[in-house]
Amino acid sequence: MTTTHAGTGAEATIPPVGSLEHADAVELLGLVAQLEHVAFARLAADSALAPTIEQRLELSRFAAAAVARRDRVLARITEIGADPVAAVRAYDAVLDDFDARTPPGSWWERLLKAYVGYGVADDFCRLAAEGLDAGSRAVVLEVLDDASHAELAVAELDAAGSADGVLTARLALWGRRLVGEALGVVQRLLVQRPALVRLVALGSTSQPDAPPNAPTKLFGELTAQHTRRMARLGLTA
Amino acid sequence: MTTTHAGTGAEATIPPVGSLEHADAVELLGLVAQLEHVAFARLAADSALAPTIEQRLELSRFAAAAVARRDRVLARITEIGADPVAAVRAYDAVLDDFDARTPPGSWWERLLKAYVGYGVADDFCRLAAEGLDAGSRAVVLEVLDDASHAELAVAELDAAGSADGVLTARLALWGRRLVGEALGVVQRLLVQRPALVRLVALGSTSQPDAPPNAPTKLFGELTAQHTRRMARLGLTA
Repeated sequence: MTTTHAGTGAEATIPPVGSLEHADAVELLGLVAQLEHVAFARLAADSALAPTIEQRLELSRFAAAAVARRDRVLARITEIGADPVAAVRAYDAVLDDFDARTPPGSWWERLLKAYVGYGVADDFCRLAAEGLDAGSRAVVLEVLDDASHAELAVAELDAAGSADGVLTARLALWGRRLVGEALGVVQRLLVQRPALVRLVALGSTSQPDAPPNAPTKLFGELTAQHTRRMARLGLTA
Repeated sequence: MTTTHAGTGAEATIPPVGSLEHADAVELLGLVAQLEHVAFARLAADSALAPTIEQRLELSRFAAAAVARRDRVLARITEIGADPVAAVRAYDAVLDDFDARTPPGSWWERLLKAYVGYGVADDFCRLAAEGLDAGSRAVVLEVLDDASHAELAVAELDAAGSADGVLTARLALWGRRLVGEALGVVQRLLVQRPALVRLVALGSTSQPDAPPNAPTKLFGELTAQHTRRMARLGLTA
């Protein structure tokens, strides 16, 4: 298969196969697809554990929506001529460490973990997506904007937290623990995946040469987003 | 809310609120919705346990499809003026006994359990659906016909079983255990839910008065379908 930069329409948004740009796009798309698959698995497990039938029904809908989002990303990987299964497999264990280090002790901790964990991961992918070709970027941003499960977490945690000062204090602490571990995941990803470093650098500057401060800016941005997210729950980040 | 038998179009397919027919329809729709929800939960758990990424992706799609099917049934319950959450809640623990009695010992046993268990449940609901008003019947039959997860089980079990005589023999035994327990679930449902007995009776005869032999016919039919299902896998029922 060959593609050219001179093509128009959909073709023009597909980076040439074998190019660095192409390989980097497949890396980020693979990560996003894996994160949506993990979101499906977590939401499905949350549905099984949820205290009420209404929550079980709602969480299963969120799980199904994550499958649809993941498949939109997989379709893009196929579209640019790469193997979607291989791209997802490359990130197979991406959150295993995070999960092992942060076993939630209650339903509320579980909800907050999803909210904070997905939040950091989504923000990271959104920033890296700025370095993608236009077509892939559009898919990633659309998928991340659709991730509506945060709404449930916010509504529930807000209702529970505002009525219970001890819970609020405990959850604020848990949130700090979670964001530390989540930023650790991002740190390890950047060490292991030069493609992601290149995308973040490309996205954060108009110069394609990676500026040395791109990762620092990235962590500043991720932390600021986390603080805003916790504030929505009335929790101190 | 009032509905009349004299209405035309969609209205004509809605049994009058408060009628026995109406209450019976809500019972069966609640059971079907619960079974689809259970299917979602099982398929999602299967996805987490599946040996390959391809299977994990495929099973998550089946899980998402079960959510869509369940929601089609819930929409029908709303349409006929009943509370969908209450209708599902009524069957909350419907497969708990079945699950406790049949813990699968391997991936293959798990696959066969889903195939046999869902098979019997679907067949039962299909037969009882014959006693429903036309609109509700159409929804139930459409939902049951879409249940495509059986295809995966058949393909996988067929491939594995044909290469391994010991596995085949063991699975045939497991299948007999499963169908016995599944028919036990149907038996208990008929004892606990007179509405389901009325629907089966209505569906199996042109006389609306329940013939005394309807349950016997039902179990004969369920067993015959199970035998056909096992034969598709090359297993003796």
